[in-house]
Parts: sequence; structure tokens; C-alpha cells
Amino acid sequence: MNVLLVYAHPEPRSLNGSMRDFMVDRLRSSGHAVQLSDLYAMHWKASLDAEDFPQRDATQRFDPSMDSRHAFVEGTQIADVVAEQDKLRWADLVLFQFPMWWFSMPAMLKGWFERVYAYGFAYGVGEHSEARWGERYGEGSFKGKRAMLVVTTGGWAEHYSERGINGAIDDVLFPIQHGMLFYPGFEVLPPFVVFKSGAMHAQRYEETVAALGKRLDEAMVAQPIAYRRQNHGDYLIPALTLKPGLSEGRSGFALHRGGEEQCDLAAEGRGESALRQASY
Amino acid sequence: MNVLLVYAHPEPRSLNGSMRDFMVDRLRSSGHAVQLSDLYAMHWKASLDAEDFPQRDATQRFDPSMDSRHAFVEGTQIADVVAEQDKLRWADLVLFQFPMWWFSMPAMLKGWFERVYAYGFAYGVGEHSEARWGERYGEGSFKGKRAMLVVTTGGWAEHYSERGINGAIDDVLFPIQHGMLFYPGFEVLPPFVVFKSGAMHAQRYEETVAALGKRLDEAMVAQPIAYRRQNHGDYLIPALTLKPGLSEGRSGFALHRGGEEQCDLAAEGRGESALRQASY
Repeated sequence: MNVLLVYAHPEPRSLNGSMRDFMVDRLRSSGHAVQLSDLYAMHWKASLDAEDFPQRDATQRFDPSMDSRHAFVEGTQIADVVAEQDKLRWADLVLFQFPMWWFSMPAMLKGWFERVYAYGFAYGVGEHSEARWGERYGEGSFKGKRAMLVVTTGGWAEHYSERGINGAIDDVLFPIQHGMLFYPGFEVLPPFVVFKSGAMHAQRYEETVAALGKRLDEAMVAQPIAYRRQNHGDYLIPALTLKPGLSEGRSGFALHRGGEEQCDLAAEGRGESALRQASY
Repeated sequence: MNVLLVYAHPEPRSLNGSMRDFMVDRLRSSGHAVQLSDLYAMHWKASLDAEDFPQRDATQRFDPSMDSRHAFVEGTQIADVVAEQDKLRWADLVLFQFPMWWFSMPAMLKGWFERVYAYGFAYGVGEHSEARWGERYGEGSFKGKRAMLVVTTGGWAEHYSERGINGAIDDVLFPIQHGMLFYPGFEVLPPFVVFKSGAMHAQRYEETVAALGKRLDEAMVAQPIAYRRQNHGDYLIPALTLKPGLSEGRSGFALHRGGEEQCDLAAEGRGESALRQASY
């Protein structure tokens, strides 16, 4: 398969740098093609601004969405953005690797999403009407592709547990996994998270990369997170609120995963996709 | 009072630009001192990297936390970072204004937090031991200051409602409000959010800034969000999990707000702070 690794850490001689090298080696030795976008090494431009659209009418006010739409349609996007979009088209699996800084990704990587995720490419795809709110959350340009986060954090697993003070890790990552990956169509694999990253030693590192390698080996067959799809009956349109009766007894971001009621449906013989949805 | 507005939008002739000008005028005409950090206009460097620490030993590997700690203690931080830290020390109220891009702040602003929030300034403050996990989440350098987000988004309020597909707005903003503002000690005011930002017209704009002006007028007396404080008995230390019996029946980020049981305590006469906490 074709694997794109989008990587954002400023120091190659770091835990992240070692894990990056491990992943590239593991994937290539398994026969996969790998492209690496090492954002710091590339001196990636992190800020989305009018300079990204040199052919726009500079007398008009800059509109990030509309200027993006125009440049994408007209083929006037700048070269570094086009190159990353081509890598996304090429990839079957996209890995995003970064240290968690302030409960999100580094600005460097955030700017990659802002600039590469053009209007017409990652959003604004499909019919937008009162009856249909675009192709997103389970549909879109990246449908059929998979994505996975590889994240390090200094905090303990307990601090990110269901009742941990930082919030549950699945909730902390929801704006990324649901809002930036599932939104344009990726199937999102459960994240690989290294906690207590400041307390790494040789044996723990070997165990960590062994577990990471296993996750890479299984990436194309593993069950993705069962986020609910926008256009398959779970949401009212155009309000886009979850229909009454679904995810009863749950609250917060967990509403947007299929769960118990899918298990009930499966028990009633309505099967395959329900089982798949209940798997994470 | 002293107000710092940290603002991140690339186009002055935008809804955000108009709201920015409105806020500065309103605050100044009310007799407050205002400083504006207009990050795009300042050409703010969004990426945290080794170049931020010109006096570090470049033969050693770059460690974002430890190099930050060292530079903060030694007084060798670079000038643009020091200037922003001084503004934070000066401010009684800090407003962060931005368009929501991909369910978070623009990379430009994220990079402001990464670079300005030095070790020893916004994190790594206070004793870290098995008995005490630093001064954070309700304590820290910014204790006594207030912060508020002013956010625009193209999505509808329904899409960000309790059962909306994007997740509830309070949950989407939690990693920022709890993880980046409450963490270093700010009291966090409820956010001012403009939904459907693409459908703004003259009358709606007047109503919007009237509501925003009222929020500014009330900023120093309004009730902050009742996030639970780390070091005041709600959490086990060092696991930092919420103690059993608190936030019963809730899940997700909502666990970390005081709520019903505080109301119960208030009814039992344990009073003042409980009432305050139950107010949002």
C-alpha cells in the first residue's frame, strides 16, 4: 500500500524522531511505498494567508474559503500545497505524527491542514442544500482511505482516562479525529498514544515500537472508530442533530459513535455494518 | 482595567476585523486601557523551534520544554516572546479572537500559545511531586486574571448544540478554555460565539456587536465557567482522576465542571463558592 507520514517535530534526535524512523523502516521493509512530509525539515509555511493565492485580485478583500475555492478550481494553488494534495491522493493510509502541545497538534501541523485542506478538496464537497449538507463525516474526497494519529504526551494515561483531569484522550482528540479526518472521508483508526513521554527508557522504547509496529501491520484490516455518518439516517438534515433515540444515556462527543443500539440491531440480525460500528 | 486582545485573522476587512475594531473602541470609550496583538499584522512567527533559543547549546538536541525552561529562568528568551509575556502580566482581562478553522484556532494563534506559554510561566509552575501536581487548573501565573474567547464559525448553532454533529460548542472549545486558559490560572468567561458567520448582514451585525459590547461591559463581574480546580479536593493526586461520587451521571468533558452536587452542597449551607460554581 501507499503510506503518507505527515510528521511535525522540530528535533530529529527526539523520541518522535526515533519513532518516525522506525515507522518508515517498518513500512518499507513490509513492502509498502512511503512518502514522508517532515514539516519542520521542509520549512513548511504554517500560516494560511493571502500570499498563498498570488493570482487573486489583491484589490478585493481576502476570503480564506472563497479564495481557496477559486484557486482549487482554477488550478492556481501554490506549489507546496499542490504537492501535499497529490500525496494525499496517492496514499491509502495517512499517518499524522506529533507531540501533543497544549492539548492539540503543533501549529506547524495545524497550518498544514489549513493550507492543504482546500475548499472543494476537503470541505465544500458535494451538494449543499436543505436536503443534503455536503459530502462529509463519512463521505468526501478521502473516502476509502484510512488515517491514524501517532501522538506523544508527557501526561499520564490516568490523566487522560475517562475521569482524568485533562479529559479522556478520545475526547481530547475528537476535534482532530472526527473534525479533521472523518470529516473529509477518512476511516479513522484508533490512535497510537505514548503517555509519559518524558519517562522513556530503552526497554520501554522497545515495547513501544513493538506495539506501534503491530498497529502498522494491521492498519488496513483493523476496525476504524465507529463514528456515525452524516448522510445515512442518524442525523436530522439540515439541523444535523442526532435523531432522538440514538445514543440514549450518553452525552458529550461519545454521542457521535455508534454503540449499544447498534449491538442491539446486530442481535436482531441486521448485522455486518452494525458489528463493525460496535467494534471500538 | 487593562485589556489585552490577541487577534488572529488575515484580513482586516472581514467580520472579525470589524468586531476587533468595535471591541477596541468600546473598551477604550469605557475608560479601559487596551493593547492589541494583531498576529497576522505583526507577522508573528507561528512555529516553535530551536531558532527561538539563539543562546542554547546548539550541539545538544533541542528539547522544547527544557530549552524553554532554561531561557525563561536565564532571561534569554527572544524579544517577541518577552513582549507578549509582558502584555499578559499587565492585563486584567485577555480576549482571544479568531475564526474557528477545523474546530480549533488558526495555526497562527496556536503558535502564539506554544511560544509565549513558556515553561515556568504557563506550565511547570509550582511543586511537582506525588503530593502536589503543580499549580495549574485554577492556579498558576495568571490567577486573578480573566480570559474570554470571541469566535466566529460558519456552522449553525444547531450543528454545535448538545446533539449537533460537530459536537457541543462547549466541548469543542474545552481543549482551549480548560486546557490553555484555565490551566495556567485564568478564570474563563463563557465564550462569545458567532454562528453562521457567512450569513452576516447589517441588522444582524448591529445585534451581534450590541450583544458583544454587553459582554465586554460585564466582563469583570460575570460568572466564570465553573471548572473544577485541581488542588482543592475534587481530584485524586497524582492520578488526577475525579473522585468517586462527583459528577455522577455525567460523562465527557462535562465531568470537569462543578454542577448539581455543588447545588446540593449550597442547599446544605456550604455556600458561597458552590453557588458561584453552579452559575454557568
